[in-house]
Amino acid sequence: MTAASPADRLPATLEKGAPVASHASLLQGVSLPAAAIFEAPLAHNLAWMQRFADAHGARLAPHGKTTMTPGLFRRQLAAGAWGITLATAIQCRAAFAAGVERLLLANQLVGEPNMAIIAELIEAGAEFHCVVDGADNVAALGRYFAARGQRLNVLIELGVPGGRCGCRDADQVAALVAAIAEQPALVLAGIEGYEGMISGGDEVAAVCAYGERLVETVRALRASGVLQREAPIVTASGSKWFDLIAEAFDRAELREHYMPVLRPGCYVVHDHRLYAGAMAAVKARHPGLEGELKPALEVFAHVQSLPEPGLAIVALGKRDIGHEPDLPLPLRLYPVASTTTATPRDVSAWRTTHIMDQHVFLAIPDDAEVAVGDVIAFGTSHPCLTFDKWRRVLLVDDALGVREVMETRF
Amino acid sequence: MTAASPADRLPATLEKGAPVASHASLLQGVSLPAAAIFEAPLAHNLAWMQRFADAHGARLAPHGKTTMTPGLFRRQLAAGAWGITLATAIQCRAAFAAGVERLLLANQLVGEPNMAIIAELIEAGAEFHCVVDGADNVAALGRYFAARGQRLNVLIELGVPGGRCGCRDADQVAALVAAIAEQPALVLAGIEGYEGMISGGDEVAAVCAYGERLVETVRALRASGVLQREAPIVTASGSKWFDLIAEAFDRAELREHYMPVLRPGCYVVHDHRLYAGAMAAVKARHPGLEGELKPALEVFAHVQSLPEPGLAIVALGKRDIGHEPDLPLPLRLYPVASTTTATPRDVSAWRTTHIMDQHVFLAIPDDAEVAVGDVIAFGTSHPCLTFDKWRRVLLVDDALGVREVMETRF
Repeated sequence: MTAASPADRLPATLEKGAPVASHASLLQGVSLPAAAIFEAPLAHNLAWMQRFADAHGARLAPHGKTTMTPGLFRRQLAAGAWGITLATAIQCRAAFAAGVERLLLANQLVGEPNMAIIAELIEAGAEFHCVVDGADNVAALGRYFAARGQRLNVLIELGVPGGRCGCRDADQVAALVAAIAEQPALVLAGIEGYEGMISGGDEVAAVCAYGERLVETVRALRASGVLQREAPIVTASGSKWFDLIAEAFDRAELREHYMPVLRPGCYVVHDHRLYAGAMAAVKARHPGLEGELKPALEVFAHVQSLPEPGLAIVALGKRDIGHEPDLPLPLRLYPVASTTTATPRDVSAWRTTHIMDQHVFLAIPDDAEVAVGDVIAFGTSHPCLTFDKWRRVLLVDDALGVREVMETRF
Repeated sequence: MTAASPADRLPATLEKGAPVASHASLLQGVSLPAAAIFEAPLAHNLAWMQRFADAHGARLAPHGKTTMTPGLFRRQLAAGAWGITLATAIQCRAAFAAGVERLLLANQLVGEPNMAIIAELIEAGAEFHCVVDGADNVAALGRYFAARGQRLNVLIELGVPGGRCGCRDADQVAALVAAIAEQPALVLAGIEGYEGMISGGDEVAAVCAYGERLVETVRALRASGVLQREAPIVTASGSKWFDLIAEAFDRAELREHYMPVLRPGCYVVHDHRLYAGAMAAVKARHPGLEGELKPALEVFAHVQSLPEPGLAIVALGKRDIGHEPDLPLPLRLYPVASTTTATPRDVSAWRTTHIMDQHVFLAIPDDAEVAVGDVIAFGTSHPCLTFDKWRRVLLVDDALGVREVMETRF
């Protein structure tokens, strides 16, 4: 049996989550399940976080690994972002190919095929920075890029004991500075950290202290004359503690002599629980803060089976939506009989009790008004592990009309 | 900023897990992380399970949702499989486009855009069966396919109380038979079940009883004259209890008058823990059974950082490998200094303690011989949620040479 004959009898390709008709809406002309981003909260979040960074004298390099969606990268840049942060060389290449010319790799660059990818991007004109935390990697990078006659911008990563990557203390930083100095191909441009690894105890105090440590470290390095960038970079911040990091970086001296960079990723679509809670905490710490991030990402799916009272099986699973730390959150139900958005019902009191590869189990009232074929919109918590389930996400308007099909590049 | 100019300066596209060179091996010319399937155990598993099904007088319709890899579907068919099972209409379309003409949708077909996909496949010549478990869905399908002048083959799904989809008891089955009889567009072709939902108590006894219930139900339906297929289908079986289901179906009467179909999915690449354990249990139940399934899927990744004694951070995360029910299992380490496969070291005593989106934390001995850039091969448990992290998997030989790049169609 060959692929040729039956495929030839089919019209154009059709893939998961794609519209099957023009002028499609999530209730007509889209094969569900499908992932949707609502235009209005997306635009709001893009502007809100850029304004927040601007107000604190920081640049924004949103973490692109959250979405890996070039259509969102372009909107982030258009809203004023300085660049895009990525987690791997392959992600950097995808972002560059989509028009992102300023790339921050928030990991060590490891492995010759990955170094080759970055060498190619630099050759093609990318402004690239990556992080380093060990002398072996520094030596490997120095050799690789020297052999190609290229220079590589590096930031020293500061970590926390028991955390992920990064120098644990000042001695390790000093040793790394010395190792970098031996590699003419490397340009030491500043320091990088990620406060998201801090947990337990008084987290607010620990994050503030970590922000101070980043500032003190970059100051000490600048004073010692080892930084080779006019305005050395100091960068940190995920989407949970961005206010505390922004404040740690927000001082006249840093605005004048350094370049603070914030790197939240999830803010762009926010979420319905984990980051919703983090936002509430930000607001509680800053009662005067205007506005807030809004959830923009939902996944739409059909009620698949109603096999016994109190149980609905939904055609949505681990292949379609993140389930950590929270199981998918049912929000609204659109009855199958309806093809308009006029009649969604609030089903946020229903509870996801279990998720499998392709199915969700919903605990519902025994007398719930629900039919096979009804469409349920689910919220996520958190969003990173929802995006990577999709090769495309649908940008939709308030009436659920599909405005744009945005490809992802995982 | 537009996508055009920098992308134009790049050579051909390059995506996650793809070779960057011809004659690549996993240690040279592939950007890691990458997912690899070893040729020899794959070929072994394909032949082993087909032989097992043949020996029990059953057809094989491997569950394709596990891999969604047309290159594997074609190998399964070439090894003798009757068809491929899928979980969604979109998956059916991808399989058909890849040359699979006999499709078994092991779920209800819900939603008009999904019905339209199947109508198109039937029109193009697909032999298609789906399952039904509720009168509303039966009516919706009957209306939809009658309006198009098509006939749709359906199997009644038998479920278990507290389980997933499917009729809970004989009364529900009888009501469904009556509902199907009212829809001239529907062809009742047999029954379907999934024993993988059974858990707790004496599972072996419960699975055997469920197998018996499937057989008794299809017999009763045949006796009552409601089945419209010459050799009615009776189908069940995942990759855990396939022996018990095969035995329940293995009787002269079924071989003569029915068509038993087994649907394991994970067997094709097996795994390193969950299904390894299930295989050991199969062997324990059948000491005379010849041979066994072998793990064929591994994910290769670089040691990313060695920030403190006893801890290695690996450039591999939830975006790259399944982590349920077991965290990724380190198997072998290939030192960065080596570019041959001659020197892998067994690191199966190391333990994954934590996984994030792009990172794995490995607990290692304080004096472990390891360097940033070393490559570690990880086993998975189980495989379904590893495949869906990749747009391609690499078929490799024993020397880690890339023999084929197989696209996935999630």
